[in-house]
Amino acid sequence: MLPNLPKGYRVAGIACGLKPSHKLDLSLIVSDHPASAAGVYTQNLVCAAPVTFDRSVTPAEDVRMVLINAGIANACTGERGLEDARAMANAVLDAVPPQKGFTRGQAIVMSTGVIGHFLPMDTLKAGINNIVKELGTSQECIHNAVTAILTTDTHEKVASATVEINGKKATIWGMAKGAGMIGPNMATMLITVISDLAINASMAQTALKEVADRTFNCISVDGHMSTNDTLVFLANGMSDVIIGNNEQFEVFKQGLYDVCETLAREIPNDGEGAFHLVTINVEGLKSRDDARKIAKQIAESPLVKTAIHGADPNWGRIVSAAGYAGVPFNPDNVNLWVNGFKLFENGAPAPFDAKEVSQSMADNREIEIILTFKEGSESIRFWTTDLSEEYIHINADYTT
Amino acid sequence: MLPNLPKGYRVAGIACGLKPSHKLDLSLIVSDHPASAAGVYTQNLVCAAPVTFDRSVTPAEDVRMVLINAGIANACTGERGLEDARAMANAVLDAVPPQKGFTRGQAIVMSTGVIGHFLPMDTLKAGINNIVKELGTSQECIHNAVTAILTTDTHEKVASATVEINGKKATIWGMAKGAGMIGPNMATMLITVISDLAINASMAQTALKEVADRTFNCISVDGHMSTNDTLVFLANGMSDVIIGNNEQFEVFKQGLYDVCETLAREIPNDGEGAFHLVTINVEGLKSRDDARKIAKQIAESPLVKTAIHGADPNWGRIVSAAGYAGVPFNPDNVNLWVNGFKLFENGAPAPFDAKEVSQSMADNREIEIILTFKEGSESIRFWTTDLSEEYIHINADYTT
Repeated sequence: MLPNLPKGYRVAGIACGLKPSHKLDLSLIVSDHPASAAGVYTQNLVCAAPVTFDRSVTPAEDVRMVLINAGIANACTGERGLEDARAMANAVLDAVPPQKGFTRGQAIVMSTGVIGHFLPMDTLKAGINNIVKELGTSQECIHNAVTAILTTDTHEKVASATVEINGKKATIWGMAKGAGMIGPNMATMLITVISDLAINASMAQTALKEVADRTFNCISVDGHMSTNDTLVFLANGMSDVIIGNNEQFEVFKQGLYDVCETLAREIPNDGEGAFHLVTINVEGLKSRDDARKIAKQIAESPLVKTAIHGADPNWGRIVSAAGYAGVPFNPDNVNLWVNGFKLFENGAPAPFDAKEVSQSMADNREIEIILTFKEGSESIRFWTTDLSEEYIHINADYTT
Repeated sequence: MLPNLPKGYRVAGIACGLKPSHKLDLSLIVSDHPASAAGVYTQNLVCAAPVTFDRSVTPAEDVRMVLINAGIANACTGERGLEDARAMANAVLDAVPPQKGFTRGQAIVMSTGVIGHFLPMDTLKAGINNIVKELGTSQECIHNAVTAILTTDTHEKVASATVEINGKKATIWGMAKGAGMIGPNMATMLITVISDLAINASMAQTALKEVADRTFNCISVDGHMSTNDTLVFLANGMSDVIIGNNEQFEVFKQGLYDVCETLAREIPNDGEGAFHLVTINVEGLKSRDDARKIAKQIAESPLVKTAIHGADPNWGRIVSAAGYAGVPFNPDNVNLWVNGFKLFENGAPAPFDAKEVSQSMADNREIEIILTFKEGSESIRFWTTDLSEEYIHINADYTT
């Protein structure tokens, strides 16, 4: 069973004809109240039109809906692409009947799929007029909404947390699509998190940025930053929970973190050709940014990733990847554990049973790397995958 | 036929027992005169003992020999590794009879192979005593010397150029081993370039740094920087060519560049699982460093590399890789050609026949990418490979 929606939201998913496969490809989330909204977007200079559009919307206090299409990414589409994104937002605002006593509000739009193609606006507008009739809170509605955003993901990604403040409860609920690409597409993360708690947009933006930094910005499948990555958060205040003071803010942030961490881990876990989910803990650096640089270099080294795929406890590849991250450290203070086995101690190889460690790597889907330094007290947790022949098949053999 | 040696050098290659396969694994180059020597080394903080040792030797005016072993990398071996590197240098200096009238001079040492293992010094010293008896200038000697440094390279890598100044000729000759790894090893470049021209060590160092920057620092197979990468240059002055003034320096540098470019291209061309050699020209940036960042991001994107492997003219992956290189540019001024076909024009998809471009990519081992910007007048040429299932086999399936 999928986790239920927070109060005051309805969702739907339909097939509107954007995917050649005729699978579900349009997803809509509507809040009955205007919601505070925050957004975090790709840092790629070559960004898609919906990203440019959403950046102009968030943060805001009056967002009513999030519309997401799969099949066409509306990326590298210039001025016309931006007009299409705007028209897509206006079309869905027009199609959803306004709640009594509320203004029209704003819509957020996201797209994923083939790049360099224009959205077929007539098909899309017809789909929008159909999807609003399907809105609801049932398991079927939720299932359709979370499925319609997927591309090569093998399963839906949903997470939920309950936040309790002064005995009152609110729900934080999120859905994501992960790293998947077919034909000329590229890996794209689209994440929508909604809640029925009340928080102003500026506080929500601060929390979302901070949480994204520790979750979605700590994952890597192939290191290729998408043109479309989008994370938005909506809070409509339909529960009795109000986030006002610092203490309440921390409780909220923890709930938001829990949902985002679960979704973030699911993305490499369901990465293309992934046989292992690899958690990389890097500890003892001067700054989190230093720790992130080292973790990212390890996470994106094809030599590390193929060694993990081959269940090879190859500490040399891990330690040497750290060595070219551009972060100064004393190699004599480096220690490394893989799945609890110490492989490297104070800058020198530790004695270990290679067969035993290899067996542990082969037997466990989850691999844990801990790499410690003595440069400071900052650390990071980062998630990635191994690199398999299957990844090559998916990305090389399906040509345009 | 392999290019002949410059004047005043003798070489040899033998199997001394460091490789379990009993293949050739020890290579020696001796100059009959003390030579000016320059060196460029890995920037990896976790560097091998011979790199630390050689850094203390070059630049120098009195280098007599270069000894290279394959099989064991002498990396991550701490203080004992450094003592072994020093002992290796002293052993070969002791074993080669000094030429009349010259001091003992210095030796440069390099190692490649398994990391985290100590050199078996007795085996190595016995090998050194044997290899000095094999020194010569014959094709067989050259063949053995250039073959003994290889690991998973499929063929030897040798290049030569003639430099002419005032009607007098000198030879610049180089040998390299490239990106190859087996078991727990990692990709390592070891390059030795020798010449019979006369140049002082400080000028040689300047030229070598500049040329390395345009050749060996512009290649990437998998982006994993080795602990052992070493490029050294020796000039023994046994020809009549003396490099003194600026004009002569430029002639020398061009010859050095020609040898280094040939060797540098051969490394990705013979990269593990490489089906294509990809040349990436990035033009129109504010600085060479900006151009390099963009070229490197494209060269190391698994999505770009798998697309090339699949003969997919996937301009979206190339353009979007440029977008996250951390270099500011106006996407509306970007143009892209692959194998002469224009795929992207002024920030938008150009009309092209996908089948025709794909056929061209499938039919040609060499793929040429040209990506132009309008931010400035600096450019770079970068070389890489595609990414194939074979790469995964080589690096995942041969476990420790």
